[in-house]
Amino acid sequence: MFTSGQYRVLRAISMMGNISRTQLVEITGLSKATVSTLTRELLDRNILSERELVFGQGRPAILLGLNAISACFAGVSLQSDPAQILLTDLHGEILAQMDFPRIPDPDTCVDHIASGIETLLARAGDRAGPLGGVGIAIPGFVALDRRVCLRSTALGWRDIDIVTPLRERLKVPVFAENDANALVQGEHLFGILRDCPDFSMIIVGDGGIGCAHIVDGKLHRGFHGGAGEISHTTVFWPDGKETERPCSCGKRGCLDTVSSLQAIRSMAQQRDLPGSPAELELLARDGHADALRILHIAGGAMGLAVAQLVQLFDPSQVVVMLDQPFREGVFGAVLRQTMETHVMPRPDWETTLTLRETRRTDWATGAAGIATRQFLFSE
Amino acid sequence: MFTSGQYRVLRAISMMGNISRTQLVEITGLSKATVSTLTRELLDRNILSERELVFGQGRPAILLGLNAISACFAGVSLQSDPAQILLTDLHGEILAQMDFPRIPDPDTCVDHIASGIETLLARAGDRAGPLGGVGIAIPGFVALDRRVCLRSTALGWRDIDIVTPLRERLKVPVFAENDANALVQGEHLFGILRDCPDFSMIIVGDGGIGCAHIVDGKLHRGFHGGAGEISHTTVFWPDGKETERPCSCGKRGCLDTVSSLQAIRSMAQQRDLPGSPAELELLARDGHADALRILHIAGGAMGLAVAQLVQLFDPSQVVVMLDQPFREGVFGAVLRQTMETHVMPRPDWETTLTLRETRRTDWATGAAGIATRQFLFSE
Repeated sequence: MFTSGQYRVLRAISMMGNISRTQLVEITGLSKATVSTLTRELLDRNILSERELVFGQGRPAILLGLNAISACFAGVSLQSDPAQILLTDLHGEILAQMDFPRIPDPDTCVDHIASGIETLLARAGDRAGPLGGVGIAIPGFVALDRRVCLRSTALGWRDIDIVTPLRERLKVPVFAENDANALVQGEHLFGILRDCPDFSMIIVGDGGIGCAHIVDGKLHRGFHGGAGEISHTTVFWPDGKETERPCSCGKRGCLDTVSSLQAIRSMAQQRDLPGSPAELELLARDGHADALRILHIAGGAMGLAVAQLVQLFDPSQVVVMLDQPFREGVFGAVLRQTMETHVMPRPDWETTLTLRETRRTDWATGAAGIATRQFLFSE
Repeated sequence: MFTSGQYRVLRAISMMGNISRTQLVEITGLSKATVSTLTRELLDRNILSERELVFGQGRPAILLGLNAISACFAGVSLQSDPAQILLTDLHGEILAQMDFPRIPDPDTCVDHIASGIETLLARAGDRAGPLGGVGIAIPGFVALDRRVCLRSTALGWRDIDIVTPLRERLKVPVFAENDANALVQGEHLFGILRDCPDFSMIIVGDGGIGCAHIVDGKLHRGFHGGAGEISHTTVFWPDGKETERPCSCGKRGCLDTVSSLQAIRSMAQQRDLPGSPAELELLARDGHADALRILHIAGGAMGLAVAQLVQLFDPSQVVVMLDQPFREGVFGAVLRQTMETHVMPRPDWETTLTLRETRRTDWATGAAGIATRQFLFSE
């Protein structure tokens, strides 16, 4: 798609935002003449555009930025039902979006995605550049080739390839990825963590608990592609009342059995309590013993799992994405406290724990980010 | 030390063992003429040597190999008392070794190391090439600059730099490293895992439980240099009898409180049992209930910690280094069983768990490996 020199320029601009040719020379280490040629080529291809003049000492500098509408990308999330498709520009800004029913039959799913993208392209009209690629976030294991879904319990899939038929139909690159991996890559490309080379992210969403790691500036997928299965890490051991409920994976004592939204709802229902985050936190604020107990166990188990992660791998920070009532309530407080209590005191640093709110569009935006990343950096 | 082309040749030969110039062209992607020049330079510097002729089709090929005695390296382990120094050749073969008392006073420690290396060099005589560098394995946190020990409980050190005085005295590069990190790098350079790009290693030794990871062919030190603190990962939660004994780190429920050699000895003493691995395993084989209980909890907790690691990071394999009686006895069996029970079934792979025996020289050999790696690859 681009030459290696062009990739270097694009990477620098994507990392730094709008910058001048002089800054590009400094950052890339390329010569002034080479930067001038490369930026000319990218301007001609409409990938870059010239921005405002900056007046300082000497001649005013023209800043170069990514031309947001030079290409658009489709992101698909099969993470929950209904599923979601959206179109983003080169900066990850959403141009159009729609929901569609998550029907596990692969052919139907391919049809829905392809026709959904066509609808959104028509709807976005001139605001969208030509389609540069498609990313699909799938809850489950995806092979390292980013094509075959090896297994998805939520979709009932085993060795399903929806990438090849979509690629043939849409004539653009298509990539499948585990949902949490997609989300973290979107954050790393577009989000506030885009200059952070090492972080881990945990997402407590409707589809379960996801986790993914950026290590040395790249997604750490694990040797077999199975990294980030925090949902089924054992927190209750060797025994304990909580482990009496077996997990959907067949094991006992998994984080998923107490800290997922589904587990929290189910524990609440057993005690005739409402199961929504807001209602449970409200009850807890009024001192309701059962609500407090549920939130303590959910936040505590999550805090313990975060502590395990910090002890074993020492990321620069851990970001946990949570519904707003949990983030500001007992769940979040107990999470933080348990994590801090179970991480060994370190000589001169602490690992930052950030609690952030999830937006439903994060998954599909992340999926679009994979296609954007491939388009811009060929990785 | 070397040019980037020379490093490429050295890396290929170090990875592949003895190979021909034709194979070097294939592996490095360099031209025939360049490979010829680079190997000539390295032969002239005595880093490479020509080996046996291989007769196949066409002209017999001369194999090139690292010249083991072109340089030697000193490895120091402060992991246990007595401490150890050894000299290795370029292949990690031990040329000479000695113990010395581990005296925490930094000046005394520097003296012991420097004079120990001089003694060993004299003892090795012609079998050793010129000293190429020194590596020091320290039980504790070492700064990312591989110079300052930030904290070592075993040595009572805080912000101690023994690297600078040693470098000034010996006039060669000196590197400090966390002990487990040193060991895993030695294994990755010299051991049977030298072509394995992703693995984690856990060491149950006299100095506690160490852990280190190789990710993408490189040591994963973590963002702050604190990765691999498996010893203080929490395994007992939310409570349980075993957690009543607080850990030396101040927390409760750490792996260290039940699976370290020290913890096992202490649990045995409390029950008037002998504390050595061999004696405990022998009692367990005869069905002694207390011995069985100690080994079950020690092996089980370790298995759980390994399962956490596999769930979160998916290495290609986990190697646990254990005393031989534990490896072949109840400890090893329960470890394996607990790990397998607590890892979620994966679509089409299993993470290999290998139990291996520790040798006392592994730590210092690993430390020497760090200096060797720096010498050969400048990393």
